[in-house]
Amino acid sequence: MGLVIVGSIAFDGVKTPYGEVDKVLGGSAIYASMASKHFCKTHIVGIVGEDFSKCHFDMLQKNNIGYEGLEVVPGKTFYWKGVYNDLNRAETLDTQLNVFANFDPRIPSDYRKCEYLFLGNIDPDLQLRVLDQMDNTKITACDTMNFWIEGKREKLLEVISKIDILFINDDEVKMLTGENNIFVAAEAAGKLGPQLIIVKRGEYGSMAAAKDFIFFAPVYPVKNVIDPTGAGDSFAGGFMGYLSAQKNYNKTSIKNAIIYGTVMASFSIESFSLDKLREIDLKNIEARKESVIKNIKI
Amino acid sequence: MGLVIVGSIAFDGVKTPYGEVDKVLGGSAIYASMASKHFCKTHIVGIVGEDFSKCHFDMLQKNNIGYEGLEVVPGKTFYWKGVYNDLNRAETLDTQLNVFANFDPRIPSDYRKCEYLFLGNIDPDLQLRVLDQMDNTKITACDTMNFWIEGKREKLLEVISKIDILFINDDEVKMLTGENNIFVAAEAAGKLGPQLIIVKRGEYGSMAAAKDFIFFAPVYPVKNVIDPTGAGDSFAGGFMGYLSAQKNYNKTSIKNAIIYGTVMASFSIESFSLDKLREIDLKNIEARKESVIKNIKI
Repeated sequence: MGLVIVGSIAFDGVKTPYGEVDKVLGGSAIYASMASKHFCKTHIVGIVGEDFSKCHFDMLQKNNIGYEGLEVVPGKTFYWKGVYNDLNRAETLDTQLNVFANFDPRIPSDYRKCEYLFLGNIDPDLQLRVLDQMDNTKITACDTMNFWIEGKREKLLEVISKIDILFINDDEVKMLTGENNIFVAAEAAGKLGPQLIIVKRGEYGSMAAAKDFIFFAPVYPVKNVIDPTGAGDSFAGGFMGYLSAQKNYNKTSIKNAIIYGTVMASFSIESFSLDKLREIDLKNIEARKESVIKNIKI
Repeated sequence: MGLVIVGSIAFDGVKTPYGEVDKVLGGSAIYASMASKHFCKTHIVGIVGEDFSKCHFDMLQKNNIGYEGLEVVPGKTFYWKGVYNDLNRAETLDTQLNVFANFDPRIPSDYRKCEYLFLGNIDPDLQLRVLDQMDNTKITACDTMNFWIEGKREKLLEVISKIDILFINDDEVKMLTGENNIFVAAEAAGKLGPQLIIVKRGEYGSMAAAKDFIFFAPVYPVKNVIDPTGAGDSFAGGFMGYLSAQKNYNKTSIKNAIIYGTVMASFSIESFSLDKLREIDLKNIEARKESVIKNIKI
Protein backbone atom coordinates (compact mmCIF):
# COMPACT_ATOMS: atom_id res chain seq x y z
CA MET A 1 0.00 0.00 0.00
CA GLY A 2 0.99 3.62 -0.19
CA LEU A 3 2.45 5.84 -2.88
CA VAL A 4 5.36 5.14 -5.19
CA ILE A 5 7.25 8.15 -6.52
CA VAL A 6 9.70 7.77 -9.37
CA GLY A 7 11.87 10.71 -10.29
CA SER A 8 15.16 12.49 -10.07
CA ILE A 9 17.34 12.76 -7.01
CA ALA A 10 19.70 15.65 -7.36
CA PHE A 11 22.20 17.91 -5.80
CA ASP A 12 21.24 21.47 -6.67
CA GLY A 13 23.13 24.71 -6.90
CA VAL A 14 20.63 27.58 -6.65
CA LYS A 15 20.97 31.34 -6.67
CA THR A 16 18.01 33.62 -6.00
CA PRO A 17 17.78 37.29 -4.98
CA TYR A 18 17.79 36.00 -1.37
CA GLY A 19 20.97 33.97 -1.37
CA GLU A 20 22.89 31.12 -2.86
CA VAL A 21 23.40 27.47 -1.96
CA ASP A 22 25.31 24.67 -3.64
CA LYS A 23 25.10 20.87 -3.65
CA VAL A 24 21.94 20.80 -1.58
CA LEU A 25 19.53 17.90 -1.78
CA GLY A 26 16.80 18.23 -4.39
CA GLY A 27 15.19 16.50 -7.37
CA SER A 28 11.55 15.70 -8.15
CA ALA A 29 11.39 12.45 -6.16
CA ILE A 30 12.87 14.07 -3.08
CA TYR A 31 10.63 17.16 -3.09
CA ALA A 32 7.51 15.12 -3.85
CA SER A 33 8.21 12.52 -1.17
CA MET A 34 9.01 15.12 1.47
CA ALA A 35 5.53 16.54 0.79
CA SER A 36 3.60 13.27 0.50
CA LYS A 37 5.13 11.63 3.57
CA HIS A 38 2.87 13.70 5.82
CA PHE A 39 -0.16 11.88 4.44
CA CYS A 40 0.80 8.35 3.46
CA LYS A 41 3.56 5.78 3.37
CA THR A 42 5.81 6.90 0.52
CA HIS A 43 8.39 4.89 -1.41
CA ILE A 44 10.86 6.47 -3.80
CA VAL A 45 12.54 4.99 -6.84
CA GLY A 46 15.60 6.70 -8.24
CA ILE A 47 19.31 6.54 -8.81
CA VAL A 48 22.15 8.17 -6.88
CA GLY A 49 25.94 8.12 -6.89
CA GLU A 50 28.42 7.39 -4.14
CA ASP A 51 28.25 11.02 -3.01
CA PHE A 52 24.75 10.33 -1.69
CA SER A 53 25.92 9.80 1.85
CA LYS A 54 24.74 8.31 5.12
CA CYS A 55 23.23 11.61 6.26
CA HIS A 56 20.96 11.60 3.21
CA PHE A 57 19.78 8.05 3.84
CA ASP A 58 19.27 8.97 7.48
CA MET A 59 17.11 11.89 6.44
CA LEU A 60 14.90 9.60 4.34
CA GLN A 61 14.72 7.07 7.16
CA LYS A 62 13.86 9.71 9.72
CA ASN A 63 11.05 10.94 7.48
CA ASN A 64 9.68 7.44 7.01
CA ILE A 65 10.33 7.50 3.26
CA GLY A 66 10.97 4.04 1.83
CA TYR A 67 14.17 3.90 -0.20
CA GLU A 68 14.46 0.25 -1.14
CA GLY A 69 14.00 1.49 -4.72
CA LEU A 70 16.99 3.80 -4.50
CA GLU A 71 19.81 2.42 -6.60
CA VAL A 72 23.33 3.43 -5.58
CA VAL A 73 25.93 3.14 -8.33
CA PRO A 74 29.52 4.25 -8.80
CA GLY A 75 29.84 7.85 -9.89
CA LYS A 76 28.21 11.12 -8.93
CA THR A 77 24.58 12.02 -8.32
CA PHE A 78 22.71 14.20 -10.86
CA TYR A 79 23.70 17.86 -10.48
CA TRP A 80 21.68 20.90 -11.56
CA LYS A 81 22.64 24.53 -11.17
CA GLY A 82 20.32 27.44 -11.84
CA VAL A 83 19.65 31.07 -11.10
CA TYR A 84 16.32 32.80 -10.54
CA ASN A 85 16.47 36.46 -11.41
CA ASP A 86 12.80 37.20 -10.86
CA LEU A 87 11.66 34.09 -8.92
CA ASN A 88 9.32 33.13 -11.75
CA ARG A 89 11.71 31.41 -14.10
CA ALA A 90 14.94 29.54 -13.55
CA GLU A 91 17.83 29.94 -15.92
CA THR A 92 19.84 26.71 -16.03
CA LEU A 93 23.56 27.32 -15.66
CA ASP A 94 24.78 23.73 -15.53
CA THR A 95 23.35 20.22 -15.85
CA GLN A 96 25.51 17.16 -15.09
CA LEU A 97 23.44 14.00 -15.57
CA ASN A 98 26.16 11.79 -14.04
CA VAL A 99 24.64 8.48 -12.88
CA PHE A 100 21.16 9.66 -13.92
CA ALA A 101 22.20 9.12 -17.56
CA ASN A 102 21.96 5.37 -16.95
CA PHE A 103 18.78 5.38 -14.90
CA ASP A 104 16.66 2.33 -15.65
CA PRO A 105 13.97 2.34 -12.99
CA ARG A 106 13.38 -1.01 -11.34
CA ILE A 107 10.39 -1.18 -9.06
CA PRO A 108 10.97 -3.45 -6.02
CA SER A 109 8.42 -6.25 -5.96
CA ASP A 110 6.83 -4.93 -2.76
CA TYR A 111 6.14 -1.58 -4.41
CA ARG A 112 4.49 -3.07 -7.49
CA LYS A 113 1.25 -3.61 -5.64
CA CYS A 114 0.95 0.02 -4.53
CA GLU A 115 -2.27 1.62 -5.72
CA TYR A 116 -0.89 5.12 -6.25
CA LEU A 117 1.99 6.07 -8.52
CA PHE A 118 3.52 9.44 -9.27
CA LEU A 119 5.92 9.68 -12.18
CA GLY A 120 8.06 12.76 -11.73
CA ASN A 121 9.29 14.75 -14.71
CA ILE A 122 11.70 12.29 -16.35
CA ASP A 123 12.19 10.81 -19.82
CA PRO A 124 8.86 9.39 -21.10
CA ASP A 125 10.68 6.18 -22.05
CA LEU A 126 11.51 5.66 -18.39
CA GLN A 127 7.97 6.59 -17.35
CA LEU A 128 6.66 3.88 -19.69
CA ARG A 129 9.04 1.29 -18.25
CA VAL A 130 7.73 2.06 -14.79
CA LEU A 131 4.10 1.75 -15.89
CA ASP A 132 4.91 -1.69 -17.32
CA GLN A 133 6.20 -2.88 -13.96
CA MET A 134 3.22 -1.86 -11.84
CA ASP A 135 0.62 -4.54 -11.11
CA ASN A 136 -2.18 -2.99 -9.24
CA THR A 137 -2.37 0.77 -9.62
CA LYS A 138 -5.64 2.52 -8.95
CA ILE A 139 -4.42 6.04 -9.79
CA THR A 140 -1.31 6.93 -11.78
CA ALA A 141 -0.13 10.48 -12.32
CA CYS A 142 2.73 12.06 -14.18
CA ASP A 143 4.47 15.37 -14.54
CA THR A 144 6.36 16.50 -17.61
CA MET A 145 8.01 19.55 -19.17
CA ASN A 146 8.60 21.44 -22.43
CA PHE A 147 11.83 19.48 -23.06
CA TRP A 148 9.90 16.19 -23.47
CA ILE A 149 6.92 17.79 -25.21
CA GLU A 150 9.26 19.01 -27.90
CA GLY A 151 11.83 16.24 -27.92
CA LYS A 152 9.88 13.04 -27.20
CA ARG A 153 6.35 13.88 -28.17
CA GLU A 154 5.20 10.44 -29.34
CA LYS A 155 6.49 8.62 -26.27
CA LEU A 156 5.07 11.30 -24.02
CA LEU A 157 1.66 10.97 -25.67
CA GLU A 158 1.84 7.23 -25.01
CA VAL A 159 2.51 7.89 -21.31
CA ILE A 160 -0.30 10.44 -21.16
CA SER A 161 -2.74 8.00 -22.78
CA LYS A 162 -2.07 5.51 -19.96
CA ILE A 163 -2.30 7.69 -16.87
CA ASP A 164 -5.16 9.14 -14.83
CA ILE A 165 -3.80 12.52 -13.77
CA LEU A 166 -1.52 14.87 -15.68
CA PHE A 167 0.35 17.61 -13.82
CA ILE A 168 1.45 20.30 -16.25
CA ASN A 169 1.99 24.04 -16.24
CA ASP A 170 0.06 26.57 -18.35
CA ASP A 171 2.62 27.14 -21.05
CA GLU A 172 3.26 23.44 -21.36
CA VAL A 173 -0.37 22.41 -21.72
CA LYS A 174 -0.72 24.99 -24.48
CA MET A 175 2.42 23.63 -26.15
CA LEU A 176 1.25 20.04 -25.75
CA THR A 177 -2.14 20.65 -27.34
CA GLY A 178 -1.40 23.51 -29.72
CA GLU A 179 -4.24 25.50 -28.14
CA ASN A 180 -3.73 29.08 -26.96
CA ASN A 181 -6.75 29.34 -24.71
CA ILE A 182 -5.96 27.68 -21.38
CA PHE A 183 -9.47 26.24 -20.94
CA VAL A 184 -9.54 24.80 -24.45
CA ALA A 185 -6.01 23.47 -23.92
CA ALA A 186 -6.94 21.72 -20.65
CA GLU A 187 -9.98 20.17 -22.32
CA ALA A 188 -7.86 19.01 -25.26
CA ALA A 189 -5.31 17.50 -22.86
CA GLY A 190 -8.12 15.53 -21.23
CA LYS A 191 -8.92 14.01 -24.62
CA LEU A 192 -5.40 12.56 -24.74
CA GLY A 193 -6.36 10.14 -21.99
CA PRO A 194 -6.16 11.46 -18.42
CA GLN A 195 -9.43 11.90 -16.58
CA LEU A 196 -7.93 14.83 -14.69
CA ILE A 197 -5.64 17.65 -15.80
CA ILE A 198 -3.97 19.69 -13.07
CA VAL A 199 -2.66 22.93 -14.51
CA LYS A 200 0.03 24.56 -12.39
CA ARG A 201 0.01 28.34 -12.73
CA GLY A 202 2.81 29.45 -10.43
CA GLU A 203 1.93 32.45 -8.29
CA TYR A 204 -1.61 32.38 -9.72
CA GLY A 205 -2.48 29.03 -8.24
CA SER A 206 -3.76 25.97 -10.03
CA MET A 207 -6.71 24.60 -11.92
CA ALA A 208 -8.20 21.13 -12.05
CA ALA A 209 -10.07 20.26 -15.23
CA ALA A 210 -12.11 17.08 -15.59
CA LYS A 211 -15.00 16.17 -17.86
CA ASP A 212 -17.64 17.14 -15.35
CA PHE A 213 -16.04 19.88 -13.30
CA ILE A 214 -13.44 22.59 -13.11
CA PHE A 215 -11.89 23.87 -9.89
CA PHE A 216 -9.59 26.80 -9.25
CA ALA A 217 -7.29 27.10 -6.26
CA PRO A 218 -5.31 30.23 -5.44
CA VAL A 219 -1.85 30.01 -3.89
CA TYR A 220 -1.29 30.45 -0.19
CA PRO A 221 -0.03 34.07 -0.14
CA VAL A 222 3.67 33.65 0.64
CA LYS A 223 5.32 37.03 1.16
CA ASN A 224 8.86 35.75 1.56
CA VAL A 225 9.58 33.49 -1.41
CA ILE A 226 13.18 32.33 -1.01
CA ASP A 227 13.58 29.63 -3.67
CA PRO A 228 10.90 28.31 -6.05
CA THR A 229 12.87 25.13 -6.86
CA GLY A 230 10.72 22.06 -6.25
CA ALA A 231 7.42 23.94 -5.90
CA GLY A 232 5.71 21.87 -8.59
CA ASP A 233 7.04 18.61 -7.16
CA SER A 234 6.00 19.53 -3.63
CA PHE A 235 2.57 20.40 -5.01
CA ALA A 236 2.26 17.04 -6.78
CA GLY A 237 3.60 15.23 -3.72
CA GLY A 238 1.11 16.87 -1.39
CA PHE A 239 -1.70 16.19 -3.86
CA MET A 240 -0.85 12.52 -4.42
CA GLY A 241 -0.01 11.90 -0.78
CA TYR A 242 -3.35 13.21 0.41
CA LEU A 243 -5.24 11.34 -2.30
CA SER A 244 -3.47 8.07 -1.50
CA ALA A 245 -4.73 8.26 2.06
CA GLN A 246 -8.38 8.75 1.10
CA LYS A 247 -10.95 6.05 0.80
CA ASN A 248 -12.64 7.70 -2.15
CA TYR A 249 -11.35 9.24 -5.34
CA ASN A 250 -13.96 11.82 -6.26
CA LYS A 251 -14.52 15.55 -6.79
CA THR A 252 -14.24 16.35 -3.11
CA SER A 253 -11.05 14.40 -2.49
CA ILE A 254 -9.51 15.91 -5.65
CA LYS A 255 -10.36 19.46 -4.54
CA ASN A 256 -8.93 18.84 -1.10
CA ALA A 257 -5.85 17.26 -2.66
CA ILE A 258 -5.28 20.44 -4.66
CA ILE A 259 -5.47 22.52 -1.52
CA TYR A 260 -2.95 20.26 0.25
CA GLY A 261 -0.69 20.41 -2.81
CA THR A 262 -0.95 24.20 -2.69
CA VAL A 263 0.01 24.22 0.97
CA MET A 264 3.03 21.95 0.49
CA ALA A 265 4.28 24.13 -2.39
CA SER A 266 3.90 27.21 -0.18
CA PHE A 267 6.17 25.71 2.47
CA SER A 268 8.66 24.47 -0.09
CA ILE A 269 9.36 27.92 -1.54
CA GLU A 270 9.96 29.53 1.85
CA SER A 271 13.49 28.11 2.07
CA PHE A 272 16.32 26.76 0.00
CA SER A 273 16.28 23.01 -0.59
CA LEU A 274 14.09 21.08 1.85
CA ASP A 275 14.78 23.17 4.92
CA LYS A 276 11.20 24.29 5.46
CA LEU A 277 9.61 21.00 4.38
CA ARG A 278 11.78 19.27 6.98
CA GLU A 279 10.63 21.39 9.88
CA ILE A 280 6.85 21.46 9.42
CA ASP A 281 4.24 19.09 10.80
CA LEU A 282 0.59 18.27 10.15
CA LYS A 283 -0.54 21.07 12.44
CA ASN A 284 1.27 23.65 10.31
CA ILE A 285 -0.20 22.05 7.19
CA GLU A 286 -3.77 22.10 8.49
CA ALA A 287 -3.49 25.76 9.53
CA ARG A 288 -2.47 26.79 6.01
CA LYS A 289 -5.13 24.58 4.48
CA GLU A 290 -7.82 26.42 6.48
CA SER A 291 -6.33 29.72 5.39
CA VAL A 292 -6.38 28.80 1.68
CA ILE A 293 -9.99 27.69 1.95
CA LYS A 294 -10.96 30.88 3.79
CA ASN A 295 -9.50 32.94 0.96
CA ILE A 296 -11.94 31.48 -1.59
CA LYS A 297 -14.97 31.34 0.65
CA ILE A 298 -17.75 33.76 -0.24
CA MET B 1 -28.61 58.07 -5.62
CA GLY B 2 -26.83 55.58 -7.83
CA LEU B 3 -23.38 55.41 -9.32
CA VAL B 4 -21.43 58.10 -11.12
CA ILE B 5 -18.81 56.95 -13.60
CA VAL B 6 -16.26 59.38 -14.99
CA GLY B 7 -14.01 58.24 -17.79
CA SER B 8 -13.24 58.14 -21.46
CA ILE B 9 -15.73 57.74 -24.25
CA ALA B 10 -14.01 56.52 -27.35
CA PHE B 11 -14.28 55.17 -30.81
CA ASP B 12 -12.00 52.16 -31.04
CA GLY B 13 -10.28 50.38 -33.88
CA VAL B 14 -9.39 46.87 -32.75
CA LYS B 15 -7.72 43.95 -34.44
CA THR B 16 -7.51 40.52 -32.80
CA PRO B 17 -6.85 37.04 -34.19
CA TYR B 18 -10.64 36.76 -34.58
CA GLY B 19 -11.34 39.81 -36.69
CA GLU B 20 -11.12 43.54 -37.00
CA VAL B 21 -13.48 46.43 -36.32
CA ASP B 22 -13.09 50.18 -36.60
CA LYS B 23 -14.75 53.21 -35.02
CA VAL B 24 -16.83 51.12 -32.64
CA LEU B 25 -18.04 52.54 -29.35
CA GLY B 26 -15.70 52.04 -26.40
CA GLY B 27 -13.90 53.87 -23.60
CA SER B 28 -13.78 53.23 -19.87
CA ALA B 29 -17.00 55.10 -19.00
CA ILE B 30 -18.96 53.26 -21.67
CA TYR B 31 -17.75 49.75 -20.80
CA ALA B 32 -18.14 50.35 -17.06
CA SER B 33 -21.64 51.80 -17.36
CA MET B 34 -22.84 49.04 -19.67
CA ALA B 35 -21.81 46.61 -16.92
CA SER B 36 -23.10 48.56 -13.91
CA LYS B 37 -26.48 49.44 -15.41
CA HIS B 38 -27.73 45.93 -14.68
CA PHE B 39 -27.46 46.60 -10.97
CA CYS B 40 -28.06 50.29 -10.28
CA LYS B 41 -28.93 53.63 -11.80
CA THR B 42 -25.75 54.74 -13.54
CA HIS B 43 -24.73 58.22 -14.67
CA ILE B 44 -21.77 58.89 -16.89
CA VAL B 45 -19.56 61.95 -17.12
CA GLY B 46 -17.37 62.41 -20.16
CA ILE B 47 -16.71 64.34 -23.31
CA VAL B 48 -17.56 63.54 -26.92
CA GLY B 49 -17.35 65.24 -30.30
CA GLU B 50 -19.98 65.90 -32.91
CA ASP B 51 -19.42 62.42 -34.36
CA PHE B 52 -21.14 60.98 -31.28
CA SER B 53 -24.46 60.62 -32.98
CA LYS B 54 -28.10 60.10 -32.15
CA CYS B 55 -27.79 56.32 -32.29
CA HIS B 56 -25.19 56.49 -29.53
CA PHE B 57 -27.38 58.66 -27.31
CA ASP B 58 -30.29 56.34 -28.06
CA MET B 59 -28.19 53.40 -26.95
CA LEU B 60 -27.44 55.08 -23.61
CA GLN B 61 -31.08 56.04 -23.20
CA LYS B 62 -32.29 52.54 -24.01
CA ASN B 63 -29.91 51.16 -21.40
CA ASN B 64 -31.10 53.60 -18.77
CA ILE B 65 -27.67 55.21 -18.49
CA GLY B 66 -27.87 58.87 -17.43
CA TYR B 67 -25.89 61.11 -19.77
CA GLU B 68 -26.63 64.57 -18.45
CA GLY B 69 -22.93 64.67 -17.65
CA LEU B 70 -21.92 64.01 -21.23
CA GLU B 71 -20.45 67.15 -22.75
CA VAL B 72 -20.72 67.48 -26.53
CA VAL B 73 -18.22 69.87 -28.10
CA PRO B 74 -17.08 70.70 -31.63
CA GLY B 75 -14.53 68.25 -32.98
CA LYS B 76 -14.05 64.52 -32.94
CA THR B 77 -14.43 61.97 -30.16
CA PHE B 78 -11.32 60.31 -28.69
CA TYR B 79 -10.01 57.61 -31.01
CA TRP B 80 -7.86 54.60 -30.07
CA LYS B 81 -6.55 51.91 -32.35
CA GLY B 82 -4.82 48.77 -31.19
CA VAL B 83 -3.93 45.23 -32.11
CA TYR B 84 -3.89 42.15 -29.89
CA ASN B 85 -1.49 39.54 -31.15
CA ASP B 86 -1.88 37.13 -28.27
CA LEU B 87 -5.04 38.45 -26.56
CA ASN B 88 -3.08 39.27 -23.42
CA ARG B 89 -1.56 42.58 -24.37
CA ALA B 90 -2.69 45.35 -26.71
CA GLU B 91 -0.22 47.14 -28.89
CA THR B 92 -1.39 50.70 -29.49
CA LEU B 93 -1.23 51.69 -33.15
CA ASP B 94 -2.85 55.12 -32.94
CA THR B 95 -4.17 57.49 -30.29
CA GLN B 96 -6.06 60.65 -31.28
CA LEU B 97 -7.12 62.52 -28.15
CA ASN B 98 -9.31 64.93 -30.13
CA VAL B 99 -11.89 66.59 -27.81
CA PHE B 100 -10.64 64.49 -24.89
CA ALA B 101 -7.55 66.72 -24.76
CA ASN B 102 -9.74 69.47 -23.29
CA PHE B 103 -11.79 67.34 -20.92
CA ASP B 104 -12.57 69.20 -17.72
CA PRO B 105 -15.13 67.04 -15.94
CA ARG B 106 -18.09 68.92 -14.58
CA ILE B 107 -20.40 66.92 -12.38
CA PRO B 108 -24.07 67.90 -12.79
CA SER B 109 -25.51 69.07 -9.47
CA ASP B 110 -27.90 66.10 -9.31
CA TYR B 111 -25.00 63.68 -9.52
CA ARG B 112 -22.99 65.32 -6.76
CA LYS B 113 -25.08 63.67 -4.10
CA CYS B 114 -24.50 60.14 -5.44
CA GLU B 115 -22.94 57.87 -2.85
CA TYR B 116 -20.87 55.79 -5.26
CA LEU B 117 -18.24 57.10 -7.64
CA PHE B 118 -16.01 55.27 -10.08
CA LEU B 119 -13.14 57.20 -11.61
CA GLY B 120 -12.06 55.44 -14.78
CA ASN B 121 -8.47 55.45 -15.90
CA ILE B 122 -7.92 59.14 -16.75
CA ASP B 123 -5.41 61.84 -15.82
CA PRO B 124 -5.10 62.01 -11.99
CA ASP B 125 -5.52 65.80 -12.20
CA LEU B 126 -8.98 65.24 -13.63
CA GLN B 127 -9.73 62.54 -11.06
CA LEU B 128 -8.89 65.08 -8.31
CA ARG B 129 -11.16 67.70 -9.86
CA VAL B 130 -14.02 65.20 -9.80
CA LEU B 131 -13.39 64.30 -6.17
CA ASP B 132 -13.56 68.00 -5.28
CA GLN B 133 -17.00 68.30 -6.79
CA MET B 134 -18.65 65.38 -5.02
CA ASP B 135 -20.63 66.19 -1.88
CA ASN B 136 -21.79 62.99 -0.38
CA THR B 137 -19.82 59.97 -1.50
CA LYS B 138 -19.84 56.86 0.62
CA ILE B 139 -17.50 54.80 -1.57
CA THR B 140 -15.15 56.16 -4.22
CA ALA B 141 -13.03 53.96 -6.45
CA CYS B 142 -10.49 54.60 -9.14
CA ASP B 143 -8.63 52.77 -11.84
CA THR B 144 -5.25 53.81 -13.20
CA MET B 145 -2.43 52.61 -15.43
CA ASN B 146 1.36 52.53 -15.87
CA PHE B 147 1.27 55.77 -17.90
CA TRP B 148 0.08 57.78 -14.87
CA ILE B 149 2.15 55.80 -12.35
CA GLU B 150 5.26 56.82 -14.25
CA GLY B 151 4.22 60.23 -15.52
CA LYS B 152 2.06 61.73 -12.77
CA ARG B 153 3.08 59.84 -9.68
CA GLU B 154 2.54 62.62 -7.11
CA LYS B 155 -0.92 63.53 -8.32
CA LEU B 156 -1.87 59.88 -8.59
CA LEU B 157 -0.74 59.27 -5.01
CA GLU B 158 -2.95 62.18 -3.95
CA VAL B 159 -5.93 60.56 -5.68
CA ILE B 160 -5.13 57.19 -4.13
CA SER B 161 -4.91 58.71 -0.66
CA LYS B 162 -8.48 60.00 -1.04
CA ILE B 163 -10.31 56.97 -2.37
CA ASP B 164 -11.68 53.79 -0.83
CA ILE B 165 -11.07 51.22 -3.55
CA LEU B 166 -8.18 50.99 -6.01
CA PHE B 167 -8.54 48.87 -9.15
CA ILE B 168 -5.12 48.04 -10.53
CA ASN B 169 -3.46 45.19 -12.40
CA ASP B 170 -0.56 43.06 -11.09
CA ASP B 171 2.26 44.72 -12.96
CA GLU B 172 0.95 48.14 -12.07
CA VAL B 173 0.60 47.54 -8.35
CA LYS B 174 4.19 46.29 -8.32
CA MET B 175 5.29 49.39 -10.24
CA LEU B 176 3.28 51.69 -7.95
CA THR B 177 4.75 50.28 -4.75
CA GLY B 178 8.20 49.13 -5.90
CA GLU B 179 7.48 45.68 -4.46
CA ASN B 180 8.02 42.53 -6.53
CA ASN B 181 5.91 40.17 -4.46
CA ILE B 182 2.25 40.65 -5.36
CA PHE B 183 1.01 40.14 -1.79
CA VAL B 184 3.52 42.57 -0.35
CA ALA B 185 2.68 45.02 -3.15
CA ALA B 186 -1.06 44.83 -2.46
CA GLU B 187 -0.45 45.40 1.24
CA ALA B 188 1.82 48.36 0.47
CA ALA B 189 -0.83 49.83 -1.83
CA GLY B 190 -3.32 49.62 1.02
CA LYS B 191 -1.00 51.76 3.12
CA LEU B 192 -1.31 54.54 0.52
CA GLY B 193 -4.91 55.09 1.62
CA PRO B 194 -7.50 52.78 0.09
CA GLN B 195 -9.16 50.32 2.41
CA LEU B 196 -9.48 47.85 -0.47
CA ILE B 197 -7.12 46.95 -3.31
CA ILE B 198 -8.58 45.00 -6.20
CA VAL B 199 -5.77 43.46 -8.23
CA LYS B 200 -6.81 42.50 -11.76
CA ARG B 201 -4.86 39.52 -13.05
CA GLY B 202 -6.25 38.98 -16.53
CA GLU B 203 -6.93 35.33 -17.36
CA TYR B 204 -5.88 34.38 -13.82
CA GLY B 205 -8.75 36.20 -12.17
CA SER B 206 -8.54 38.82 -9.44
CA MET B 207 -7.62 39.34 -5.84
CA ALA B 208 -9.12 41.60 -3.18
CA ALA B 209 -6.76 42.67 -0.43
CA ALA B 210 -7.94 44.52 2.67
CA LYS B 211 -6.49 44.87 6.15
CA ASP B 212 -8.47 41.99 7.56
CA PHE B 213 -9.01 39.68 4.61
CA ILE B 214 -7.85 38.52 1.24
CA PHE B 215 -10.08 36.95 -1.41
CA PHE B 216 -9.24 35.30 -4.70
CA ALA B 217 -11.66 34.96 -7.60
CA PRO B 218 -10.90 32.96 -10.73
CA VAL B 219 -12.18 34.07 -14.13
CA TYR B 220 -15.26 32.60 -15.70
CA PRO B 221 -13.67 30.15 -18.16
CA VAL B 222 -14.32 31.81 -21.52
CA LYS B 223 -13.20 29.57 -24.36
CA ASN B 224 -13.89 32.01 -27.18
CA VAL B 225 -12.18 35.28 -26.27
CA ILE B 226 -12.82 37.65 -29.17
CA ASP B 227 -11.60 41.02 -27.90
CA PRO B 228 -10.19 41.81 -24.43
CA THR B 229 -10.74 45.58 -24.83
CA GLY B 230 -12.76 46.94 -21.92
CA ALA B 231 -12.46 43.82 -19.74
CA GLY B 232 -11.05 45.78 -16.79
CA ASP B 233 -13.68 48.51 -17.13
CA SER B 234 -16.51 45.99 -17.38
CA PHE B 235 -15.10 44.30 -14.28
CA ALA B 236 -15.00 47.57 -12.35
CA GLY B 237 -18.46 48.52 -13.62
CA GLY B 238 -19.98 45.21 -12.53
CA PHE B 239 -18.22 45.47 -9.18
CA MET B 240 -19.27 49.05 -8.47
CA GLY B 241 -22.78 48.59 -9.86
CA TYR B 242 -23.47 45.62 -7.62
CA LEU B 243 -21.95 47.32 -4.59
CA SER B 244 -23.99 50.50 -5.16
CA ALA B 245 -27.19 48.48 -4.95
CA GLN B 246 -26.33 46.83 -1.62
CA LYS B 247 -27.40 48.05 1.76
CA ASN B 248 -24.12 47.05 3.37
CA TYR B 249 -20.52 47.52 2.41
CA ASN B 250 -18.74 44.59 4.01
CA LYS B 251 -16.65 41.49 3.27
CA THR B 252 -19.59 39.59 1.85
CA SER B 253 -20.80 42.35 -0.44
CA ILE B 254 -17.23 42.94 -1.63
CA LYS B 255 -16.71 39.26 -2.44
CA ASN B 256 -19.99 39.12 -4.32
CA ALA B 257 -19.10 42.34 -6.13
CA ILE B 258 -15.88 40.71 -7.34
CA ILE B 259 -17.80 37.75 -8.69
CA TYR B 260 -20.20 40.05 -10.53
CA GLY B 261 -17.26 42.04 -11.89
CA THR B 262 -15.72 38.79 -13.09
CA VAL B 263 -18.95 37.83 -14.83
CA MET B 264 -19.32 41.19 -16.58
CA ALA B 265 -15.72 41.00 -17.83
CA SER B 266 -16.37 37.51 -19.15
CA PHE B 267 -19.27 38.74 -21.28
CA SER B 268 -17.36 41.79 -22.43
CA ILE B 269 -14.51 39.79 -23.98
CA GLU B 270 -16.81 37.50 -25.94
CA SER B 271 -17.42 40.10 -28.62
CA PHE B 272 -15.97 43.21 -30.17
CA SER B 273 -17.09 46.50 -28.62
CA LEU B 274 -20.26 46.22 -26.52
CA ASP B 275 -22.06 43.67 -28.66
CA LYS B 276 -22.26 40.99 -25.99
CA LEU B 277 -22.83 43.40 -23.09
CA ARG B 278 -25.79 44.81 -25.01
CA GLU B 279 -27.54 41.49 -25.44
CA ILE B 280 -27.33 39.97 -21.98
CA ASP B 281 -29.75 40.26 -19.09
CA LEU B 282 -29.75 39.59 -15.35
CA LYS B 283 -30.66 35.95 -15.92
CA ASN B 284 -27.50 35.41 -17.97
CA ILE B 285 -25.49 37.22 -15.33
CA GLU B 286 -26.87 35.15 -12.45
CA ALA B 287 -26.18 31.90 -14.30
CA ARG B 288 -22.51 32.78 -14.75
CA LYS B 289 -22.25 34.00 -11.19
CA GLU B 290 -23.42 30.60 -9.93
CA SER B 291 -20.92 28.93 -12.21
CA VAL B 292 -17.98 31.03 -10.95
CA ILE B 293 -18.93 30.27 -7.36
CA LYS B 294 -19.25 26.55 -8.11
CA ASN B 295 -15.71 26.55 -9.51
CA ILE B 296 -14.22 27.62 -6.17
CA LYS B 297 -16.47 25.60 -3.92
CA ILE B 298 -14.78 22.71 -2.10
